[in-house]
Amino acid sequence: MKSSQDAYGKQLLDEYLGQKKTSEIIERDDNLILTGSEEGMYFTEYEEWSEAEREAIGKARGKTLDIGCGAGRHSLYLQNKGFDVTGIDNSNGAVRVCKMRGLKKALVRSIEEIDKFPKNSFETILMLGNNFGLFGSRRKAKNILNQMSRITVENAQIIAGTLDPYQTTDENHLSYHRLNRRRGRMPGQIRIRVRYHRIVGEWFDYLFVSPAEMEDILQGTDWQIKEFIGSSDPNYITVIEKSVLPGKS
Amino acid sequence: MKSSQDAYGKQLLDEYLGQKKTSEIIERDDNLILTGSEEGMYFTEYEEWSEAEREAIGKARGKTLDIGCGAGRHSLYLQNKGFDVTGIDNSNGAVRVCKMRGLKKALVRSIEEIDKFPKNSFETILMLGNNFGLFGSRRKAKNILNQMSRITVENAQIIAGTLDPYQTTDENHLSYHRLNRRRGRMPGQIRIRVRYHRIVGEWFDYLFVSPAEMEDILQGTDWQIKEFIGSSDPNYITVIEKSVLPGKS
Repeated sequence: MKSSQDAYGKQLLDEYLGQKKTSEIIERDDNLILTGSEEGMYFTEYEEWSEAEREAIGKARGKTLDIGCGAGRHSLYLQNKGFDVTGIDNSNGAVRVCKMRGLKKALVRSIEEIDKFPKNSFETILMLGNNFGLFGSRRKAKNILNQMSRITVENAQIIAGTLDPYQTTDENHLSYHRLNRRRGRMPGQIRIRVRYHRIVGEWFDYLFVSPAEMEDILQGTDWQIKEFIGSSDPNYITVIEKSVLPGKS
Repeated sequence: MKSSQDAYGKQLLDEYLGQKKTSEIIERDDNLILTGSEEGMYFTEYEEWSEAEREAIGKARGKTLDIGCGAGRHSLYLQNKGFDVTGIDNSNGAVRVCKMRGLKKALVRSIEEIDKFPKNSFETILMLGNNFGLFGSRRKAKNILNQMSRITVENAQIIAGTLDPYQTTDENHLSYHRLNRRRGRMPGQIRIRVRYHRIVGEWFDYLFVSPAEMEDILQGTDWQIKEFIGSSDPNYITVIEKSVLPGKS
């Protein structure tokens, strides 16, 4: 990402260097604007996370890849537990913050670039904090899930958080679902950009899916849902396990 | 204001009816975006106000006009003290909230329309919460100050809050001052709009002035500064008194 557009990274840097809590501003392509996270959320410690998130990270095992690592809250927690963990983020600023905070393996790399990792590199892929959304679209998800299969070992897992877009009565969101259906997008496929001070980030797609939609996306890939964590909430986390059919790999 | 653009009013209504605290999002015409107020600020009670604001409102006397009354925090305080107070705001939603909260005299009226009030209507004009800014520009301020002279009694006063734009080292603001100078505007004359959910408010000018600039604006009008309250802070409040020269009225 061009640093002139790295609104998210600049905000994380300011928050880290200035020791002040901020809340990011997200703009959606229907003009909706909202503050996208609780103040200081990206720098929270284990004790401040939701019960579901604490349970989910407890399931990490082996070499771990944290996709969209942000300020490194999940990666640093695991590193402190002795894990070999690599954090990647497409934001320069985010990765700089991770390094300043002591994360040993932090790379500027987007989810589209994970095929740069060698075969069998990881046993766990973390996509917490709604980062299932980084798949962006149904088609891109299937594509990337195949790459994930290649860079992970046999018994690998993906631990991914998302939000069921249908658990809302907010007309702002319901009308957006209708707009998306009209233009042939998944209802929960939001096109957003981050704004911070005078920096206007690039538009990108972020995908919220229901459990049924997630199952549909995994259909035909090497991955299947093993477990839902905290599934009564709009936010939920899924443990997805690799299940290569005999003879397929 | 067309209700389809009344982002500010819709936010106040949602906050009041939903009993939830919100923080407004302000966009400036150089793409700067920020949350413009503390959460729930428009609904704060006397005890939560700054010392300067509490001191300032203690100076109100006689029939009072509260310009840009918002959710009515200042007007309601004075009404409860037995004042005859009229709150005006150009936001429909804001005035609806004031009425629901029990403000007896609340009108949808902008600062440009105060000449609709009869001669000698008020003894105090309140422009707290940085509402000196509603003057918008140097020229408009002089114009409106003349109307204010007409609708107020002889010993009237204006109690107005603003922010000294030069008390900053933030490059976002310093570069905006330069931009404004280049286009012939006062450095602290910001062009902003309020955004709330999918509502994009209209652009409007809001004026921040240093004490010297305020004196310059009052030059040649019937008004002069009597007192500064809390002037060591970037935010300060001024008591401006009517001082018609002999023979002038």
